[in-house]
Amino acid sequence: MSAPLDASKLTIELTKTPSSPLPKDELVFGKTFTDHMVEVEWSKEEGWGAPKISPRHPLTLDPATVVFHYSFELFEGMKAYLDSKGEVRTFRPNKNMERMNRSAKRAALPEFDGEEFLKIIDQFLLVDKKFIPQGEGYSLYLRPTLIGTSVGLGVSKPDHALLYLIASPVGPYFGPNFKPVSLEATEYAVRAWPKGYGQYKLGANYVSSIEPQTQAAKKGHNQNLWLFGEEGYITEVGAMNVFFVFKNGDKKELVTPPLNGTILPGVTRDSTLQLARTKLSADEWIISEREITIHQVKEKAANGELLEVFGTGTAAIVSPVNNIEFRDEHIKVPTGDKFGPLTENVLEWIKSIQYGETEFDDWSRVAKKL
Amino acid sequence: MSAPLDASKLTIELTKTPSSPLPKDELVFGKTFTDHMVEVEWSKEEGWGAPKISPRHPLTLDPATVVFHYSFELFEGMKAYLDSKGEVRTFRPNKNMERMNRSAKRAALPEFDGEEFLKIIDQFLLVDKKFIPQGEGYSLYLRPTLIGTSVGLGVSKPDHALLYLIASPVGPYFGPNFKPVSLEATEYAVRAWPKGYGQYKLGANYVSSIEPQTQAAKKGHNQNLWLFGEEGYITEVGAMNVFFVFKNGDKKELVTPPLNGTILPGVTRDSTLQLARTKLSADEWIISEREITIHQVKEKAANGELLEVFGTGTAAIVSPVNNIEFRDEHIKVPTGDKFGPLTENVLEWIKSIQYGETEFDDWSRVAKKL
Repeated sequence: MSAPLDASKLTIELTKTPSSPLPKDELVFGKTFTDHMVEVEWSKEEGWGAPKISPRHPLTLDPATVVFHYSFELFEGMKAYLDSKGEVRTFRPNKNMERMNRSAKRAALPEFDGEEFLKIIDQFLLVDKKFIPQGEGYSLYLRPTLIGTSVGLGVSKPDHALLYLIASPVGPYFGPNFKPVSLEATEYAVRAWPKGYGQYKLGANYVSSIEPQTQAAKKGHNQNLWLFGEEGYITEVGAMNVFFVFKNGDKKELVTPPLNGTILPGVTRDSTLQLARTKLSADEWIISEREITIHQVKEKAANGELLEVFGTGTAAIVSPVNNIEFRDEHIKVPTGDKFGPLTENVLEWIKSIQYGETEFDDWSRVAKKL
Repeated sequence: MSAPLDASKLTIELTKTPSSPLPKDELVFGKTFTDHMVEVEWSKEEGWGAPKISPRHPLTLDPATVVFHYSFELFEGMKAYLDSKGEVRTFRPNKNMERMNRSAKRAALPEFDGEEFLKIIDQFLLVDKKFIPQGEGYSLYLRPTLIGTSVGLGVSKPDHALLYLIASPVGPYFGPNFKPVSLEATEYAVRAWPKGYGQYKLGANYVSSIEPQTQAAKKGHNQNLWLFGEEGYITEVGAMNVFFVFKNGDKKELVTPPLNGTILPGVTRDSTLQLARTKLSADEWIISEREITIHQVKEKAANGELLEVFGTGTAAIVSPVNNIEFRDEHIKVPTGDKFGPLTENVLEWIKSIQYGETEFDDWSRVAKKL
């Protein structure tokens, strides 16, 4: 009998050496962590073991553990927010659980009941609540991670795995020194391909991004823009989904590439599309998931029809783009050093739901004690 | 000053609890290991630290270490052999070092002087020599591994890394119960893509292979055959390179797909090509690195012109194929349950160099004390 993941089996061991949260102005993304972590072990024979929250500690793994050799690893990025009433909220965490399970299936790692893991995450958030910084733009970044822990060099389906979660307090992605990002369109490397695994949040999709990122940085850019195929289809920007706002006849059009297998189905991407479809007038706006090439963007810019460009992702929510370098030419986005009007709207819509100021569907989950 | 990898700084700490090698008939690939391991730490500030050989032990890593999240990991597969004089030999290990450095560059991990690492590996082999099983088909499988060990969730070039090596005694890949492998041609998943990273030995290339392998096994096959594109170009077989022998007019032709960026440049692949070009008469044989589709193989088989199919890799050297299932049809290889004549020749040529019975260029390296 293979046991399912069961939040009711959770054990909690609190740290004997509690630390103090850093001052808010010293927070750096992913560099400092809370006092505790979540761990759940899985084995083929036993299924999911008893979840535990315990003091954050190193993992001790044999050097032949498969996670070091064959990249049996995947993760999620989520955030927890403190609302004005002091309650702890997560934003559409069920979407992360669904994606994490899809990733697990593709990586031959065990799937689990997402709602059970969310209950465990809620308990973790209540244990480490003091580390969630309050205030607009502040949050606790959550990193659920699933790794294969079988020991042995044969390439086969892991029969042991570890699901764990660590958390890092973070401040606003864009501080007072905000600048939109400048991109280099990458032609010598592709991020993902049809029938590959670009739509899953596997570690495997990230290692290859450093070289294009480094090349872009050498030319003074912040990120690279991923293209696909001879046509120059735009897919993603760095590790974010990408949106364009065009003038399209009498209307404006919000465009993002469709989920064709090479695009990560971002939660912020999906939220942006749903909110745009709900809040923008269909008389004035077209909301499109469609393929778009770098050449079309260049032409739109040349015709004065490129209005805004932004990336979406959990870390920044939205990230305005002001420039794209492509074959030594610069495609300038007219918003320059500012947020475009739609970019700013999207940011406000999402933030207001994340901090519990606005209700939208079931998108904001309040952490409750088991 | 960033220090280069320097074998002369090697320290050796021997185990206080030496173990006994397993009986040769109990060896399972990658499941049991020698008493020691090699480790060399790297940091951006200091460069390569002093190499050490010490008792094999677990790695202790923070749960935010980048190897667990972004797949900063790559490896090599090599073997050491005991020759009839009791000397320890490795087979073309410089090729592994060259590939490992190419992989490191692509994965934004540090490069190193391959000859220095080979000197360290030689010392390791002399320390753990008793674990190298003697006899035809027996060897010590070596697993050099390089992982990113920076701690932090930002996706950036690692500023800490660990190069390590573990080793597993192995027996003949094909024992007395030898059977050629049967393949399923995979159409729903693609291993690699032009401008991707299929030609590097990154962990990222292995995680995605389990699903096709599992699907093939469900239909009674041993491995999957990777295809690319609508044309059905054959790329690799499981985790091996692939070779075909055809009748081609008056001659025979040995064919393997070219190194176009989607193919791992296997050491056994390269050795097979070089030996075939040296040992086979050009009057009788054509040796080709060229693209080949599954449809062409099917047609060759229908015309009675498909003679042999085999995979090549460090683990098996050669692995004869007797059947390929493609769209519910079976392409039968006429060698059936036996090694084909060329497949057997390649195996013998390579083994004889590996065990030091035949000299060929500088392909066999004898481990010498520093």
